[in-house]
Amino acid sequence: MAGLRVHNFSISLDGYAAGPRQSLEEPLGEGGRRLHEWIFETRSGRAMLGQEGGGTGVNDDLFKARQARIGGTIMGRNMHGPVRGPWPDESWHGWWGEDPPFGHDVFVMTHHGRPPLAMRNGTTFHFVDASPEEVLSLAASAAGGEDVALGGGVATIKQFLAAGLVDELHVVIVPVLLGDGERLFEPGLEGLAAYSCPNLTCAAGVAHAFISRDSAP
Amino acid sequence: MAGLRVHNFSISLDGYAAGPRQSLEEPLGEGGRRLHEWIFETRSGRAMLGQEGGGTGVNDDLFKARQARIGGTIMGRNMHGPVRGPWPDESWHGWWGEDPPFGHDVFVMTHHGRPPLAMRNGTTFHFVDASPEEVLSLAASAAGGEDVALGGGVATIKQFLAAGLVDELHVVIVPVLLGDGERLFEPGLEGLAAYSCPNLTCAAGVAHAFISRDSAP
Repeated sequence: MAGLRVHNFSISLDGYAAGPRQSLEEPLGEGGRRLHEWIFETRSGRAMLGQEGGGTGVNDDLFKARQARIGGTIMGRNMHGPVRGPWPDESWHGWWGEDPPFGHDVFVMTHHGRPPLAMRNGTTFHFVDASPEEVLSLAASAAGGEDVALGGGVATIKQFLAAGLVDELHVVIVPVLLGDGERLFEPGLEGLAAYSCPNLTCAAGVAHAFISRDSAP
Repeated sequence: MAGLRVHNFSISLDGYAAGPRQSLEEPLGEGGRRLHEWIFETRSGRAMLGQEGGGTGVNDDLFKARQARIGGTIMGRNMHGPVRGPWPDESWHGWWGEDPPFGHDVFVMTHHGRPPLAMRNGTTFHFVDASPEEVLSLAASAAGGEDVALGGGVATIKQFLAAGLVDELHVVIVPVLLGDGERLFEPGLEGLAAYSCPNLTCAAGVAHAFISRDSAP
């Protein structure tokens, strides 16, 4: 089975992956955009937006690592868009517009079926109503021997952690205080006991924590 | 008024300042001792225990900073000891034994009065039943122009944050996963909106976050 990796999962110093009061205007909640500012200071992050400039270095390298040896992506429906319930039509193409930055098959977990959506750049969105194990199996087949990225959001990562399917989780601690919002690390987070963090390092004002499954005893 | 500073407040990667199931045997809860291991790898931390060795460098400097220009300390009762309710006698002298490492007046917040307890090394424990403002006023008088350290625990720091009395809060993020326990950063933590974190840096595998009150507008 291909490895399943979470990259660039940003949380605030007080532990929130999104701020309070998420809405269509602020899908990351109030203040949540600040969690991702470090990305848009890197060369790769700016290139993703079609912009020039940005720095190279550790943060740039780590941001790019999400694409290295990744042949497929899994995400929850809310990470793909704001529509809830049955799809009213097929006009929603994802937060990324017509040029999504994936370049491979993306599996969007939803209870509401829809035909695959082929975009430019080799990205095809597949809308699947299946268990984490089944979705990972589909994504691994599509990845052709490479790893699969788990894009988020929080609820989706929790599902895969609980199922013991996440191999690596790169958490970025950003020095902002959001005060409230959505957390990954809730008391009793299921599956977490199997993981440890052998490496914590800082670069350009943020801290990178590399969490991985403990080796089998 | 003297400044009020929190130093070396360690939390796990998942946000806990103490592990679950705190007890007399494990006052920091299960796994909680791991939050403080970084201190006992420093020269100053080992010296506090009467041991030789330990490293110098950033972590050593930061650990020592808790004593620089500090003339008094405030703590909650649970940080002083495990006794709850009325004092059965005066035999409890604090977790630190007969040589506590303070060297100044320490104000222990408790609803249960008790005469001051003078220890070696110039430490005197005062047991006070008063509001955060009143306790800070007492400690500031005792500090003779120096700052006051707020030692903890979590509940005590929350009280002083809510009252807007904390000037600096040095949080140390330690790469362990405790899974459950006691948090400082709860949703809606009172008073937090007045603070920001202008500086996050790593040393020897832990991350130091320096939180301070925003300047008056």
